[in-house]
Amino acid sequence: VDLAARLAGIVGAAHVLTDPDLVASYQTDWTRRWRGHARLVVRPADTGQVAACVAACAEAGAPIVPQGGNTGLVGGGVPLHGEVLLSLTRCDRLEPVDTLTGQVTAGAGATLTQVRAHVRAAGYDLGVDIAARDSATVGGVLATNAGGARVLRYGTTRRQVLGVEAVLADGTVVGRLDGLVKDNVGYDLAQLLVGSEGTLAVLTRARLSLFPLLPVRAVALVAVDGTAAAQTVFGGLVEQLDTLRAAEFFHADGLDLVCHTTGMRPPFDQPCPTYLLVECAARAGHGTDLSDALAAALATADGVRDAVVSTDGAGREALWAYRERHTESINAAGVPVKLDVAVPPRALAQAERDIRAAVAAVAPAATVILFGHLAEGNLHVNVLGATDQADPVADAVLRAVAAHQGSISAEHGVGRAKVGWVHLSRSPAEIAAMRAVKRALDPAGLFNPGVLLPPEPHR
Amino acid sequence: VDLAARLAGIVGAAHVLTDPDLVASYQTDWTRRWRGHARLVVRPADTGQVAACVAACAEAGAPIVPQGGNTGLVGGGVPLHGEVLLSLTRCDRLEPVDTLTGQVTAGAGATLTQVRAHVRAAGYDLGVDIAARDSATVGGVLATNAGGARVLRYGTTRRQVLGVEAVLADGTVVGRLDGLVKDNVGYDLAQLLVGSEGTLAVLTRARLSLFPLLPVRAVALVAVDGTAAAQTVFGGLVEQLDTLRAAEFFHADGLDLVCHTTGMRPPFDQPCPTYLLVECAARAGHGTDLSDALAAALATADGVRDAVVSTDGAGREALWAYRERHTESINAAGVPVKLDVAVPPRALAQAERDIRAAVAAVAPAATVILFGHLAEGNLHVNVLGATDQADPVADAVLRAVAAHQGSISAEHGVGRAKVGWVHLSRSPAEIAAMRAVKRALDPAGLFNPGVLLPPEPHR
Repeated sequence: VDLAARLAGIVGAAHVLTDPDLVASYQTDWTRRWRGHARLVVRPADTGQVAACVAACAEAGAPIVPQGGNTGLVGGGVPLHGEVLLSLTRCDRLEPVDTLTGQVTAGAGATLTQVRAHVRAAGYDLGVDIAARDSATVGGVLATNAGGARVLRYGTTRRQVLGVEAVLADGTVVGRLDGLVKDNVGYDLAQLLVGSEGTLAVLTRARLSLFPLLPVRAVALVAVDGTAAAQTVFGGLVEQLDTLRAAEFFHADGLDLVCHTTGMRPPFDQPCPTYLLVECAARAGHGTDLSDALAAALATADGVRDAVVSTDGAGREALWAYRERHTESINAAGVPVKLDVAVPPRALAQAERDIRAAVAAVAPAATVILFGHLAEGNLHVNVLGATDQADPVADAVLRAVAAHQGSISAEHGVGRAKVGWVHLSRSPAEIAAMRAVKRALDPAGLFNPGVLLPPEPHR
Repeated sequence: VDLAARLAGIVGAAHVLTDPDLVASYQTDWTRRWRGHARLVVRPADTGQVAACVAACAEAGAPIVPQGGNTGLVGGGVPLHGEVLLSLTRCDRLEPVDTLTGQVTAGAGATLTQVRAHVRAAGYDLGVDIAARDSATVGGVLATNAGGARVLRYGTTRRQVLGVEAVLADGTVVGRLDGLVKDNVGYDLAQLLVGSEGTLAVLTRARLSLFPLLPVRAVALVAVDGTAAAQTVFGGLVEQLDTLRAAEFFHADGLDLVCHTTGMRPPFDQPCPTYLLVECAARAGHGTDLSDALAAALATADGVRDAVVSTDGAGREALWAYRERHTESINAAGVPVKLDVAVPPRALAQAERDIRAAVAAVAPAATVILFGHLAEGNLHVNVLGATDQADPVADAVLRAVAAHQGSISAEHGVGRAKVGWVHLSRSPAEIAAMRAVKRALDPAGLFNPGVLLPPEPHR
């Protein structure tokens, strides 16, 4: 019996796709940078089917690429060389919210938007939030330890995961979904699998910590003299406010591009070099206090050149739009080379200068737009006018970041895109330890070959 | 050259101990339950010396037991069979607090009290706090993923760790101390090592997230009709208060014992079956609001039979004493069999009944005192009058816990004490995966043999 027939016996013939028209969307990511070829697409409905599919592939020696919403930015979920594409989107069951603990168990294929709607009905919110929320799935979000704009308050995805269920390369199922906050019985396999980008196991379900809904919100856009000034203002706010949930920043060049593309009016009469956007959020009953406290904190913070605060929904959205519409405005101006990096906050301003200089050295005509998440030193680097120098530009930027003890991958993962630069952020001993873990749990290299770890030298 | 001489060449002769009088305190834990024999004690001063010591031991085939403050409760840091005792207490350097990020790098040998004093001087607090704070070290706290009474607010130690530095079994040094909050470049070795109880690597330094100092505090002791009622009251408080930092509970039997032993007066005129102790904490400037809010929340919470709130230091301490003096009062009454377990909160009240019944079945004359951390379903089980039935009592309690999908080890770890019961909380597939990770990183079994993982069946 061939593999397709065997898989059809597990999931039903309707859920094994081989027709090129049906397979096409699974073989290409949404940025269209990564295009490949899947041997077939298999769509299991539950953990038992996933385990049976993995066992069948293992027996056939057929490598597997797990895929969720296919919203990744680094090619970590795209089959390149005829792998089996294991789509988790049907494993999307949501269990009832446990209101005693504020936790929920979600299937790997549920989207963030589905999970959020489900838990909001029970009075809770999901911590992690990213732009791809309508398509990105729980499994993909965990596999990449997704970040986003609320990490300031809730931490990265890792911090919100109390347990996972996963299928190992031998088809066995491991994991805990009991939601125990204190449970020290050996190595934390859940934390090992979070961020492993589908290379160690296939995630099937997750137990997530939820947070109180925070419907009362106030947003401020603050004009400052540069990144260091933005950090000074932010430091002053942190000292005074318990309610901060986001601290984003961008620069005059990005704002100009956004206003040019979208037709939005600039937020202030006088342009400034840099803009800080902060959001405070609180539970119902904290309304007046919240915006008053934010305005008061801004009034006493050093470095504020100008500021506007908004508490109503439309006003808040209008301020957020200056930050959130960067991506589409950059895309409208051309095809950018995009890199997601982080540096220690103390090095952020200098790293920005060094990144601009490094790009200028290899692509003098290119335009560099920088914006990101201030508290974590997380920069989204967008380089326009350098499509035919993508690799040299990436190399220059990532080396500049590494020189400041930064990370070549902050929140998007390594995938296939950055495998060649892992050595800039991890030592040979660390890479060897990761390889040892990979060999221990996936000795045949069944899961996501070519992703996350650089090709192994001959041993 | 023999091993002792080689190690003396690395750390200096004064820091290699072989004199039985000097070695004695390293060979026995403070509970005196675990007594063993170390080949020698070596006390390296920094990471380089640790790495050289590990390499020398690896070459000599000499197993290593890493040890911090030797305050463990499960025998995880005691050499039993002539291992080399690697004491980390000299690796206690504290680096300056990074006030831009609220982080600090601490040596594995620094005690919690030393770290707390260091960061308080910079306006920060350390999240984790346990009773052994004056002796327990950063390395031991990370190795056991220590919990304590503040997990409600800050999570377990794991949540506060941004990176570690560690020495692997081949003597190589791995780790990141840059404090990057977003850094997704492969498997998170730091999170794998946290909770690994010295079996995968020797921790040498850690990068820790700090929290704002919360000097304004209010404590309430609440009399209720039982564990379920305590959970109802706590649920009501959680809905209304953002400031909760602790929620402890104990019962009438424990309170009677504490009052009998210490001479303290009972907190209320009328005794109640169960008592809930909650603490709220806030930054300076929130004084009046805090105790008012706590009193108001208690006034509207279902299930409160009686309550007392205190905001001044002496009053708070007096309320905390009813909970904190349980351990000494139990010890004064005899030698207890002590077990640290957790169950899902929905099962807590039934699990308590089942634990009492299970103990009664094997030791009818024994007294069972239960108390612990309410939010996490974390029970400290103390059984008096059963010293000669310690193993049957442990077995009965741990099986009762496992029947509720609980954890045989909540916050103390597996160590040597609970190796025989790991299978109650982890499946064969999970134990196999842990063994594979152990073999991958420590193929010769150099680190902490006999700890955490059950003996491996012949393969």
